Amino acid sequence: MDHAAVRILVTGGTFDKDYHELEGRLFFRRTHVREMLELGRCKLAGNVEELMLIDSLDMGDADRARVLDACRSAPEARIVITHGTDTMELTARAVGVAGLAKTIVLTGAMVPYTFGSSDGLFNLGSALAFAQALPHGTYVAMNGRCFRWDNVRKNKGTGVFEELG
Amino acid sequence: MDHAAVRILVTGGTFDKDYHELEGRLFFRRTHVREMLELGRCKLAGNVEELMLIDSLDMGDADRARVLDACRSAPEARIVITHGTDTMELTARAVGVAGLAKTIVLTGAMVPYTFGSSDGLFNLGSALAFAQALPHGTYVAMNGRCFRWDNVRKNKGTGVFEELG
Amino acid sequence: MDHAAVRILVTGGTFDKDYHELEGRLFFRRTHVREMLELGRCKLAGNVEELMLIDSLDMGDADRARVLDACRSAPEARIVITHGTDTMELTARAVGVAGLAKTIVLTGAMVPYTFGSSDGLFNLGSALAFAQALPHGTYVAMNGRCFRWDNVRKNKGTGVFEELG
Amino acid sequence: MDHAAVRILVTGGTFDKDYHELEGRLFFRRTHVREMLELGRCKLAGNVEELMLIDSLDMGDADRARVLDACRSAPEARIVITHGTDTMELTARAVGVAGLAKTIVLTGAMVPYTFGSSDGLFNLGSALAFAQALPHGTYVAMNGRCFRWDNVRKNKGTGVFEELG
Repeated sequence: MDHAAVRILVTGGTFDKDYHELEGRLFFRRTHVREMLELGRCKLAGNVEELMLIDSLDMGDADRARVLDACRSAPEARIVITHGTDTMELTARAVGVAGLAKTIVLTGAMVPYTFGSSDGLFNLGSALAFAQALPHGTYVAMNGRCFRWDNVRKNKGTGVFEELG
Repeated sequence: MDHAAVRILVTGGTFDKDYHELEGRLFFRRTHVREMLELGRCKLAGNVEELMLIDSLDMGDADRARVLDACRSAPEARIVITHGTDTMELTARAVGVAGLAKTIVLTGAMVPYTFGSSDGLFNLGSALAFAQALPHGTYVAMNGRCFRWDNVRKNKGTGVFEELG
Repeated sequence: MDHAAVRILVTGGTFDKDYHELEGRLFFRRTHVREMLELGRCKLAGNVEELMLIDSLDMGDADRARVLDACRSAPEARIVITHGTDTMELTARAVGVAGLAKTIVLTGAMVPYTFGSSDGLFNLGSALAFAQALPHGTYVAMNGRCFRWDNVRKNKGTGVFEELG
Repeated sequence: MDHAAVRILVTGGTFDKDYHELEGRLFFRRTHVREMLELGRCKLAGNVEELMLIDSLDMGDADRARVLDACRSAPEARIVITHGTDTMELTARAVGVAGLAKTIVLTGAMVPYTFGSSDGLFNLGSALAFAQALPHGTYVAMNGRCFRWDNVRKNKGTGVFEELG
């Protein structure tokens, strides 16, 4: 273990949604990743970079190209990407096929962090660990497990990530 | 990634402390590890085994022998041990010197899980990931990092885990 | 203080909204009023009656007639109504004009209870107290204050309740 | 309802206890009353005055004299006192016998506010409402109820407040 720095690329997703109390709906105000790292007493080196704050259903090819570009240009060889769960497998694929010599782990949450019952803190801890310990490649870390980018999907019925048939 | 089963051995520590509202003090009622796994939507195979529920300052040689014994007899080759932070390095040593052909990761928390601001959920996610991804050996996972059993200590002044010398 | 029983009539509103983790939206699953009372260690006599679980923007004349009817037929002379904030003043009016010989207090929340940062617990405590201590009449309890039914509105810009001009 | 200002006198108690993560014990860092009022979207006029931050078991006659003095010299005629539950009835008596022409309500919590499951927010909302709505006198507001100062005690076995035999 060399305590390599890990870059965190923020794209939004359920992870970062807040409740808009005047309009009674969920929205993005700002990322919560920094306060989650503080809450986790995380002392890893590396930067948090906010690429975008969008719902992953609104993520298009240009957005995915931007994510890949940020992975490529990041000085760190270990990267965590926070992402909405609905299209996480698509962004994993867009990044994975590029075959960068880096360890890249996508993660997200089923419940917003601002709800007390979020799985986001658990997943963030998990993704940061996988990013440090796994060999180069692109992965999805959800439900305490880690999947290769070319063998993962979200089961829309259960909300649980699983291997392809 | 083969989604190997991970056994979780519970020993207590800050992680699992509750507030006794009639006596106004912290105490152990039961482990919170199962509800933390549920909160994290963890779908890993493996069992949670409650060995003891004690403060790690109260942990003696017999307790550590029991922890080592549980590691040895567990059917799983990947193990997470939840533990108080004050003597985590001692138990890591007691387990590490045995040189079992397993991946064993100790973790804990600085703040009880029942306090909303606990680092425990982050650490549990982190420890489970390290246990799946690292080669055989005994480790301590705290502060988002992972340390080898023979090169770790808790800095009593800052509460942060660090390498020796 | 005679510790009179207080009936709580549940109509829904932000108060009781949950996050639907598969669909990524807010919805009504069940009322949280009973667990809020338990959390508050509330020992008041009286029943919780779930009339409906709807957004107050969806509340029509028939719904308001049903609320008034429930106030009238309740055996308790002291009643709290949980309600969405958007049309709370309309239901207060529908109940208030009836001039029942009871003390009736409407309250709600700006943030769902299932979000840790809810004002609902504070408001529920406040409304139950006003219901016990005020003379017969219909009131709205929000923001730590209490308003008569014929002199209250929600300021749509600030979300704060206030007297009419 | 005239929206009279309410003064809040802080004395400490379980209400305001924090977890000391380096020492693993509960302690007083600062009062949480202001953030609780903000969480409750409370818009009442009046000031928060921190008299002391102590465990109510450590409260002596001089402390109680200081509380009574603060009640007497407060410009507001409506006062809430946050207090540990163990000796709340003693301070209520010390203040109540003075017979000030004010409405004074003591309240507290069984669980620290920094624990998510605190009853403090519910009790604070309740106490502020009773302080506005009740005639002059000294009261204890706990468990959703309100008690006169000369007819209340904490049941040590259940933690619930009740009238004297």
